[in-house]
Amino acid sequence: MSESFDAVDIIATKRDRKALDKAQIDWVIDAYTRGVVADEQMSALAMAIFLNGMGREEIAHWTAAMIASGERMDFGSLARPTADKHSTGGVGDKITLPLAPLVAVYGVAVPQLSGRGLGHTGGTLDKLESIPGWQAALSNEAMLRQLDEIGAVICAAGAGLAPADKKLYALRDVTSTVEAIPLIASSIMSKKIAEGTGSLVLDVKVGSGAFMKTVEQARELARTMVDLGTDAGVRTVALLTDMATPLGLTAGNALEVKESVDVLAGGGPADVVELTVALAREMLAAAGKPDIDPAEALRDGRAMDVWRSMIYAQGGDPDATLPVATDTEVVTADADGVLQRLDALAVGVAAWRLGAGRARKEDPVQAGAGVVIHAKPGDRVTSGQPLLTLHTDTPDRFERAKEALRGAWSIAESAPDTVPLVIDRVS
Amino acid sequence: MSESFDAVDIIATKRDRKALDKAQIDWVIDAYTRGVVADEQMSALAMAIFLNGMGREEIAHWTAAMIASGERMDFGSLARPTADKHSTGGVGDKITLPLAPLVAVYGVAVPQLSGRGLGHTGGTLDKLESIPGWQAALSNEAMLRQLDEIGAVICAAGAGLAPADKKLYALRDVTSTVEAIPLIASSIMSKKIAEGTGSLVLDVKVGSGAFMKTVEQARELARTMVDLGTDAGVRTVALLTDMATPLGLTAGNALEVKESVDVLAGGGPADVVELTVALAREMLAAAGKPDIDPAEALRDGRAMDVWRSMIYAQGGDPDATLPVATDTEVVTADADGVLQRLDALAVGVAAWRLGAGRARKEDPVQAGAGVVIHAKPGDRVTSGQPLLTLHTDTPDRFERAKEALRGAWSIAESAPDTVPLVIDRVS
Repeated sequence: MSESFDAVDIIATKRDRKALDKAQIDWVIDAYTRGVVADEQMSALAMAIFLNGMGREEIAHWTAAMIASGERMDFGSLARPTADKHSTGGVGDKITLPLAPLVAVYGVAVPQLSGRGLGHTGGTLDKLESIPGWQAALSNEAMLRQLDEIGAVICAAGAGLAPADKKLYALRDVTSTVEAIPLIASSIMSKKIAEGTGSLVLDVKVGSGAFMKTVEQARELARTMVDLGTDAGVRTVALLTDMATPLGLTAGNALEVKESVDVLAGGGPADVVELTVALAREMLAAAGKPDIDPAEALRDGRAMDVWRSMIYAQGGDPDATLPVATDTEVVTADADGVLQRLDALAVGVAAWRLGAGRARKEDPVQAGAGVVIHAKPGDRVTSGQPLLTLHTDTPDRFERAKEALRGAWSIAESAPDTVPLVIDRVS
Repeated sequence: MSESFDAVDIIATKRDRKALDKAQIDWVIDAYTRGVVADEQMSALAMAIFLNGMGREEIAHWTAAMIASGERMDFGSLARPTADKHSTGGVGDKITLPLAPLVAVYGVAVPQLSGRGLGHTGGTLDKLESIPGWQAALSNEAMLRQLDEIGAVICAAGAGLAPADKKLYALRDVTSTVEAIPLIASSIMSKKIAEGTGSLVLDVKVGSGAFMKTVEQARELARTMVDLGTDAGVRTVALLTDMATPLGLTAGNALEVKESVDVLAGGGPADVVELTVALAREMLAAAGKPDIDPAEALRDGRAMDVWRSMIYAQGGDPDATLPVATDTEVVTADADGVLQRLDALAVGVAAWRLGAGRARKEDPVQAGAGVVIHAKPGDRVTSGQPLLTLHTDTPDRFERAKEALRGAWSIAESAPDTVPLVIDRVS
């Protein structure tokens, strides 16, 4: 590839609503990774892509170029088939924690290369790091060994996978170019394809707490990602799931680990159990094991056994007492009636402001901070009854958390509109 | 102004096609000038403005914020009224050179704060610097004294005028966000308003050699700039003029100075004379002196006298021999007939490649390089007759210049479509 493609011309091409060809995309991603294309040029291109879109071929070329920017992993040496899950991010979304050990019970290896949270959606690694001793960083060899012996691993994605995506994601975050379907799809799928999983189930969230606010947007994102995965030889399926209200009864780090352990013990909130089982069924089917009822291994303790081995293998103590925040404050219902809605974004922002999330990627998170939910839409409440409990180690944050919750729920006598948890399936 | 406006939110506002308010614009321009808003954020915002536009109020606020980023000049101490001219840039556009002394003849002070060329359009300062000894840099005091004593000055704009524009222009140049009407209009008008001129005539170029390729675009740009000037208390008028073919018979630095001196001596190409007189008439009228026929002062030598004083005052020798390129090559007509068109952009790019212009702002220019035109559209030519003479000190550039000229003209028996030089007037 020569240096003759000029970044200025490539930006102008997309600005003028024309398609970028494979050579242009290969050059611009590679030159950006090498620092030849400057951040200010890539951000102008990202905004042009945001506003003018990309066609299916362009997205495929863009994804391939991101994969080519780094190393590829290979799970071909494992005796078991592999299945991975990716969620586009929501509030109270702790599903990976019970799901990975549950699927491993049935002989499918689950390599969950995860990230940290940014903004109002929590990060899987942040949650697990509230377990005393648990380590997110594993060498590739340690990861493969754990997959072989235990069948499930949740760890930090190495810096070698799709470095172009890492650089571009940080840029999009500060330039308001995150929520573009071509860029979201290629970012997620470049990492998942480079990771080398044989099958992949996508949990595409829809609603106030998600990137995708409408079912139409979510369906387009799901379709784009399923096509990218399928074209790259990964068996890929997507579920569209509701994120208008938080998942389960907790949003936070240690708070969500505790709820996940409840699910692994055969209990836990109905919606968390339902989604865990639905995604496990899809992962098992994609990995060549249909007709299994994964709910069984939650009831009989086999999923819990894998969880304990998995935490223990990464230095964590599954029996340790989890951190608890120093301060709590209760938010009460302001009327009698039926809770109509509880806004996921508002609860996510409140948990974030309480210390469960970070504003900048170098910030620490509080293990104990977050929100506990006492009533979900459809529940009857009486005025003065606790609706939420806010947890933090820094009580001066209560006020800003409560500001985020202003208007976050409504109480009335009518029955609320009900939305199914799993809205659609794209394959 | 607090730092509470977040650049990310401001970018998202424009990305989502909403209007920016005055506080947002004031903050983002000031923070960008101070380096708080990063280049990659400003380029994403510029692309969002390019694709989603700005309303009249937004453009006015944007322009005001650019003016507020630097110093303002004041010509109030002068006994004469002031009038300035700005051209949006074209090929062979040497009009400022005869125009400034011509208007000064009639008691109107002409402060022409000019720039250097970038790309295929030449810069007024680059042209004048081909005169031995001539200096572009003047202190504000020297400039005011020259305006008071001679009535005309062409010099470099100081770094203190609209520094935000200077920084933003350099960024737009590498991010394909130059040709946006709100950004062009605010860039030009912020400098002209900060400069403190009492009246302003805009020469908005239309055609292949100009930023604006269609009359509709040019009219929109003219209307936007006239409104900005008028709202800021500057009497502002715009002429839309043809830039499908080069102006005059030369494109280059010393070559254009020579042609300008021909015009000041009462000769010169008809189109250069016509546009010089038309713009002079507008400047005089805007400065409160209507009903003057400025053609007179070209014929009787009074404009030449001011020119000579003006060059002399800035260290130049008006009688010095101008630099001549070391090498020339003739391009001949390839058929008999009437020249239908001679493309301005192609001639501009050829002159640029021969060394008259620069690719990067730190590059030097060749004083003698450029193109001399032997036939204009409507002229009858015979096969083998010289059409253009290319001039350069670096003869290895002839090939690339001739590449730029491929397809730049056509010869046929029919009469060409004629376009008036002055297409429209916006006030």
